[in-house]
Amino acid sequence: MFTSACTVVGGGHHSHYLSSHAVGNFSSHRPNSPIMISSISKITFNRNSVAAAASSTRNINNSINNASSSFTWDDVFQISRWPDVSSDLGGFFHKINLCNRGSERRSDFIPFVIEDQVVGYIHNGFLDHLSKFKDVFTCIKDNTYGSQFGHVTLQSALKTPKCRTEALENVVKCLGEEVIPGIRNELFPVTSSYGGQVYFSLERAAAPYFGIKAYGVHMNGYVERDGQKYLWIGKRSEMKPTYPGMLDHLVAGGLPHGISCGENLVKECQEEAGIPNSISSRAIPVGAVSYMDIDGYRFKRDVLFCYDLKLPESFIPSNQDGEVGSFKLLPITLVVDIIRSTQFFKANCNLVIIGFLFRHGYIKPEDVGYLKLLQSLTSGDCS
Amino acid sequence: MFTSACTVVGGGHHSHYLSSHAVGNFSSHRPNSPIMISSISKITFNRNSVAAAASSTRNINNSINNASSSFTWDDVFQISRWPDVSSDLGGFFHKINLCNRGSERRSDFIPFVIEDQVVGYIHNGFLDHLSKFKDVFTCIKDNTYGSQFGHVTLQSALKTPKCRTEALENVVKCLGEEVIPGIRNELFPVTSSYGGQVYFSLERAAAPYFGIKAYGVHMNGYVERDGQKYLWIGKRSEMKPTYPGMLDHLVAGGLPHGISCGENLVKECQEEAGIPNSISSRAIPVGAVSYMDIDGYRFKRDVLFCYDLKLPESFIPSNQDGEVGSFKLLPITLVVDIIRSTQFFKANCNLVIIGFLFRHGYIKPEDVGYLKLLQSLTSGDCS
Repeated sequence: MFTSACTVVGGGHHSHYLSSHAVGNFSSHRPNSPIMISSISKITFNRNSVAAAASSTRNINNSINNASSSFTWDDVFQISRWPDVSSDLGGFFHKINLCNRGSERRSDFIPFVIEDQVVGYIHNGFLDHLSKFKDVFTCIKDNTYGSQFGHVTLQSALKTPKCRTEALENVVKCLGEEVIPGIRNELFPVTSSYGGQVYFSLERAAAPYFGIKAYGVHMNGYVERDGQKYLWIGKRSEMKPTYPGMLDHLVAGGLPHGISCGENLVKECQEEAGIPNSISSRAIPVGAVSYMDIDGYRFKRDVLFCYDLKLPESFIPSNQDGEVGSFKLLPITLVVDIIRSTQFFKANCNLVIIGFLFRHGYIKPEDVGYLKLLQSLTSGDCS
Repeated sequence: MFTSACTVVGGGHHSHYLSSHAVGNFSSHRPNSPIMISSISKITFNRNSVAAAASSTRNINNSINNASSSFTWDDVFQISRWPDVSSDLGGFFHKINLCNRGSERRSDFIPFVIEDQVVGYIHNGFLDHLSKFKDVFTCIKDNTYGSQFGHVTLQSALKTPKCRTEALENVVKCLGEEVIPGIRNELFPVTSSYGGQVYFSLERAAAPYFGIKAYGVHMNGYVERDGQKYLWIGKRSEMKPTYPGMLDHLVAGGLPHGISCGENLVKECQEEAGIPNSISSRAIPVGAVSYMDIDGYRFKRDVLFCYDLKLPESFIPSNQDGEVGSFKLLPITLVVDIIRSTQFFKANCNLVIIGFLFRHGYIKPEDVGYLKLLQSLTSGDCS
């Protein structure tokens, strides 16, 4: 069931769901033949007994308690059986909080300063690992940058971006996978704010250990039909080192050094979903979200540039780089319920989709907590 | 020239503008006949000499220096002659700053507290006017709410919203137009945040003198054709007590006590632009902007709920309440240049239109200052 690479699920109301038999397999469609979402038959949901419903809730809660535990598309489609509580924003706030953990441990981190600019924050425990690299780092005991523990900087001999990059490359290599797991050999620029001076470049996996700002692009790829919106959702490959098997945007990626947001988006569109330039060039930049997440020694200070792309109904995504297991087109109401009721989505995707819900009127000023939720989408340092 | 109530200006590139003869008078159209924007002929702009251009600049600068000085639609259309500097966000930042003046004088204001909640801020000079109402106000010299001058509250005898409202109504009446000009006999709710407890209601014109949060709805009414967007822009009646003759949204209004944002928008759509429920119900809530503006004794702490409404090309706005002099449909590129180059728009409209430019991709991550500008749209207390 639901094993095809690309599947569409029609219908938007919670009291309906689609049997697997009613789901069209997009793989068999020719790219240019329009997919008639309305032609997919709806089956009225036969409500389960309270006991069965409770059992279903337990299964999903297991996934909630352990976000990395595997789940299938079947589990995803179960979500639509949940009762409608459309004006309750509580589930959304919970997802915002998941991206903004550990603020009470902020004082455990020491400013990382280059050329008088704070570019990151390093945990005092992680600093022990760095203390053996005396020709690279130096710790200055002052209160100039607001920490009683002083600040960390690079040795003054490391004057150029190139020699800083090489020195840090060596540090990351020496520390290895045990200290910095998931090394990708992908460089992120180190800046104090977006578009500012790039002081050097740093391995992507190391970025949260140095608390540097990291930027990415996330795209909501959607289809509209009869005033209903559907989002193309990916399920990450089980082989991915990070967040395997979790739900993801149609297209998303980190912003490496030396490429603009727009160029990166077009590139990721091609690699992740097989979207040609002729379509991806229509993607609209619509704003940004930000969060600050402390998890052990890691301090994520991420800003995601958000894009919306309205896709032709005939378009079928096709992953090119092996990073996505499968795609499905889900009614926005189902996506809403998945976000509110589970942790199936890679955490930061929730923020970008909640932004979509704001822009497209699915969250309304009449909903209690509207302004607070809107503000919380930029809880991090959005600069 | 351009004296018709509703006129459309076609074309979007700065090197073109439209002669008055080429402008269609929408008043003569039947409501159901589609208006073919493309049928309006474009005339290639015959560039003026440097001297003439400088003279035009001087005229516009006169308007900039005195935002309340009158200008005509002709002055507005001159703006399109200005050179294109599309990636320069400087003009936008200037408009944000116009809505967020006087932060350096924040300490001149004393917290206004009801039931242990800060609901406003009162200038210590304005407090002299209130000191004669000893049965209404009391000033407590403490530092509980972060001001060394203490805080202002209502006498404990004023326990209910009703008696507080009546007491303040009397205060505003006694102070009169000399101290609080522009009294409207329209009540705003007094809360610490949107949707929170309403402690009493206060005359709208008095709101900034008590520094209470004020909420409004602003709607970008737009038309789309061949991928180009056009905004319906109103020019306020010269008879309006506030911002006479200035450019304004198609629909905008304060949020009085006892009506939801959505209901208020539908009501304002009818009153301000003659938009029937069948169309206004399609307006999409898309977020909010906020600002904090100190001007003399007045401290504006406003939050505007923003809506986008895509209008049929055939729709012609028609003001019902005498508050709008005329409407015109302007290409978004011209609106952009008006915002950047003049102070023709009522200041807070700029923020809502800049929000529109973000959502619709007219401002891009590649533009220097993108994130800073985005954040600045909620410079006020957006709660």
